[in-house]
Amino acid sequence: MQSRPSFATAFKGRRVLITGGLGFIGSNLARALVALGARVTVLDSLIPEYGGNRRNLHGLGRKVAINVADVRDRHSLPEFLRGQHYLFNLAGQTSHLDSMTDPETDLEINCRAQLTLLEACRKHSPGIRVVFASTRQIYGRPDYLPVDERHPLRPVDVNGINKLAGEEYHLLYSAVHGIRSTVLRLTNTIGPGMRVKDARQTFVGVWIRQILEGKPVEVWGGEQLRDFTYVDDAVEAFLLAATHPKAVGGVFNLGGVGRISLRDLAKTLVAVAGQGSYAVKAFPADRKKIDIGDYYSDGRLIAKQLGWKPRTTIRQALARTVDYYRKELPHYL
Amino acid sequence: MQSRPSFATAFKGRRVLITGGLGFIGSNLARALVALGARVTVLDSLIPEYGGNRRNLHGLGRKVAINVADVRDRHSLPEFLRGQHYLFNLAGQTSHLDSMTDPETDLEINCRAQLTLLEACRKHSPGIRVVFASTRQIYGRPDYLPVDERHPLRPVDVNGINKLAGEEYHLLYSAVHGIRSTVLRLTNTIGPGMRVKDARQTFVGVWIRQILEGKPVEVWGGEQLRDFTYVDDAVEAFLLAATHPKAVGGVFNLGGVGRISLRDLAKTLVAVAGQGSYAVKAFPADRKKIDIGDYYSDGRLIAKQLGWKPRTTIRQALARTVDYYRKELPHYL
Repeated sequence: MQSRPSFATAFKGRRVLITGGLGFIGSNLARALVALGARVTVLDSLIPEYGGNRRNLHGLGRKVAINVADVRDRHSLPEFLRGQHYLFNLAGQTSHLDSMTDPETDLEINCRAQLTLLEACRKHSPGIRVVFASTRQIYGRPDYLPVDERHPLRPVDVNGINKLAGEEYHLLYSAVHGIRSTVLRLTNTIGPGMRVKDARQTFVGVWIRQILEGKPVEVWGGEQLRDFTYVDDAVEAFLLAATHPKAVGGVFNLGGVGRISLRDLAKTLVAVAGQGSYAVKAFPADRKKIDIGDYYSDGRLIAKQLGWKPRTTIRQALARTVDYYRKELPHYL
Repeated sequence: MQSRPSFATAFKGRRVLITGGLGFIGSNLARALVALGARVTVLDSLIPEYGGNRRNLHGLGRKVAINVADVRDRHSLPEFLRGQHYLFNLAGQTSHLDSMTDPETDLEINCRAQLTLLEACRKHSPGIRVVFASTRQIYGRPDYLPVDERHPLRPVDVNGINKLAGEEYHLLYSAVHGIRSTVLRLTNTIGPGMRVKDARQTFVGVWIRQILEGKPVEVWGGEQLRDFTYVDDAVEAFLLAATHPKAVGGVFNLGGVGRISLRDLAKTLVAVAGQGSYAVKAFPADRKKIDIGDYYSDGRLIAKQLGWKPRTTIRQALARTVDYYRKELPHYL
């Protein structure tokens, strides 16, 4: 990153739509875009099991237009797309376990609604720039580490299969219909606004809640390595992806500063919080089936092409997140 | 293939469901299964744009139960699955162009309905053996030839994206839920029963019709190489895939005897028909966008694992197909 990023003026006065905009990453993106002078509309279904939470945009007042709508409701979408310059497409069903017990809902959100959105872009807003939030989950169990973008795609659950289709729709519409799109494959993202009520978004959310509530954290396995992106870094990647000419039609991994075992993550979390405890347990059978072992991503492509690098260490990320929930926890339960 | 294939007695008295069973390959499969003593039910939507045609099962009388139903109609599916020993899952939207103009219909059939079928298997028929008809289209433009099963998957149209998801659902349900499934990636299949009304299934169908109607065949490009499976060979592959223990959870290419340029294919077709003519023209722009260049598949995996090899040459396949439509054409227009 240069001291003055390429997107510093790109969004001023521009119309931006964020699906899943009351969710964790979407809301942080909305705040950043408002600060950059964009005219931001957020769409969110506010379904309790998903990531949306009005608290995430607390204090912004009228600087952002909040619209409660579900991306599955195809009739309202064309209206939202009309006249938009940017679409940050973050609405999704993110729970791997839910995708296995209710695969059709996952499909409706992660596949069908994506097609509807892209069709609406094609018909009503063909000049739009789109950034799609995908997931490292589509790589499945890594053949090698770190995982780069050329790694085979072998999703291990319905969610991964559907997110992969979602990616492909975006790339296809970019290549064939000229709806300029970029796919970001996110690894675990953490920060203020993340879901802490349960593990539907990430287990780290539950850990933070348990630490703050004085309950012991359960670490399953413990040896698995992971990387973590702090949400401010992720937001910067989205803004770059939306504005950098080299991003069009591209697929990029996001990564983190370093990697860490789940056991060490729990240890660090307890240390930065100054409270709590953790215990290592065997992996539950239903989780084991769809777990992917170690994962950390190779972030060289996005560094080279778009100049993005994560800057926040895991310790800093955990400290800021714990600070936030120390005050805000009641709004997220 | 041995002289007495492994499936010779496997289907006797067994209950078999074929989705898309009035279609080209499904109906040929139904005839073979009836001959092997199976109790066959075929499901078909008989939507005029798709491959189903009652003529395809003409003469079988009560030896096969024909049920008009659409795999998208989720409420009837559980009943059909109950008590079945085998599911040959061939219902699909196959037109690449239609998938680009009406992507949601393609998704409903090739993704959503597949999930519904697999969920119905999981709930009502967990011991079933499933064979899913996929397509070489999911490889996209080949990096190398012949294309083996490890080639990167890069679908170039909505149909390819959705068929890929359909494959992945089957493999996932096989691995995680124990619904033993096999995926066959078909290349161009030709033979009696193929759609000749238009190019929705394959351009070869239209060519055969044009030859028989005395109209000149238009060859677009002409240099592209392709391989072709004769339908009897394909049927044998489906029967092997359903019964061979090494097929469970596997993905196999089907191929043909040799490969041929489209120009030579037209030439051979005119020769075996003893009538007609062809002219080579430039590739239309809308087709060019989603064309994949040369393709022919590496069939060594299925030869090694299941002992399947195509036996019918392209010339033989074309001759038998032309013979069929010389008598049957009016039933297919």
